[in-house]
Amino acid sequence: MNFLEERIVKDGVVKEGNILKVDSFLNHQIDIKLLNSIGEEFKRRFSGTEVTKILTVEASGIGIACIVAQYFNVPVLFAKKTPSLNVDGDKLASKAYSFTHKVENTIFVSSKYLSSSDKVLIIDDFLAQGSAVLALCDIVGKAGAEVVGVGIAVEKGFQTGGKLIREKGIRLESLAIVESMDASDGTIQFRNQ
Amino acid sequence: MNFLEERIVKDGVVKEGNILKVDSFLNHQIDIKLLNSIGEEFKRRFSGTEVTKILTVEASGIGIACIVAQYFNVPVLFAKKTPSLNVDGDKLASKAYSFTHKVENTIFVSSKYLSSSDKVLIIDDFLAQGSAVLALCDIVGKAGAEVVGVGIAVEKGFQTGGKLIREKGIRLESLAIVESMDASDGTIQFRNQ
Repeated sequence: MNFLEERIVKDGVVKEGNILKVDSFLNHQIDIKLLNSIGEEFKRRFSGTEVTKILTVEASGIGIACIVAQYFNVPVLFAKKTPSLNVDGDKLASKAYSFTHKVENTIFVSSKYLSSSDKVLIIDDFLAQGSAVLALCDIVGKAGAEVVGVGIAVEKGFQTGGKLIREKGIRLESLAIVESMDASDGTIQFRNQ
Repeated sequence: MNFLEERIVKDGVVKEGNILKVDSFLNHQIDIKLLNSIGEEFKRRFSGTEVTKILTVEASGIGIACIVAQYFNVPVLFAKKTPSLNVDGDKLASKAYSFTHKVENTIFVSSKYLSSSDKVLIIDDFLAQGSAVLALCDIVGKAGAEVVGVGIAVEKGFQTGGKLIREKGIRLESLAIVESMDASDGTIQFRNQ
């Protein structure tokens, strides 16, 4: 097991309905040292890959994206879910269904901050059905930019997102891939990588 | 002018309606080096202050909070705006009105992650009417914890939030305090600190 898998076993909580709670260290309370280890690992895995921008979506992706960006020395851009006075002008938008919140969001970025010369690394905390990541890929495509990779902390390997993204030929690096979980005894099986 | 005031003059955009857009470097696209300078400066201003946790609210506060937390070596906790499967159990909640989104949100944290022994530094990108920061202070109070300070990147000094917070005896450090802005010529006046 790597450092993230070990942490999930130690502090993650498996709930009925294939819910894995990591809110004590990843997506509510955040262990910043762990995010730095995640940043180091993504930098190692994507070494040699040109990255000009890191893209994520609010809210829980922002913390990881900002810490990871320190290892790539590039700006972060986060897609927003709600119209805001803070973002005007032309937008690049795509629809994403949130299974956590049971709602379809139109996520968007200002077109000013993605150009056709950008090499984009998409970062997020979780990958399940892949709706958010696929919407982010769609936004990058609308800008004429290139997705050079997707870096995910925790992938639910028994859901379809990872397969959909890999089938598109997009390089996906998930630091922990959960193959199965058992809420009755709290055990978690990871995919061998 | 300090580094943040200089950056606001260089890349901020003043719009009608007292809107200051800093979305090219602070709350949509994010300059991570700038956030690190902000983190260093908060650490300098709050040196000697015991901090056990940094608290912010989603979404745009999360990036600053995570980078700043590296300088204090403590976890980040971010309050959520929408109920989530990822946060169950007892919650500490308070109402905050968003003038940006024209909506009242109930923001909350899991009560597991704030205890009466916590010394909390509240961090956010913007302070205007102060509704979000006051709600975060209320949440800290409900946990029986202590707010040891509030660190803000950009305060709109002509709005009431800063005055309300300082009148409560809470230590507030804003790195840039905008006294006035003029959309007709784009000029910005900062408060001398």
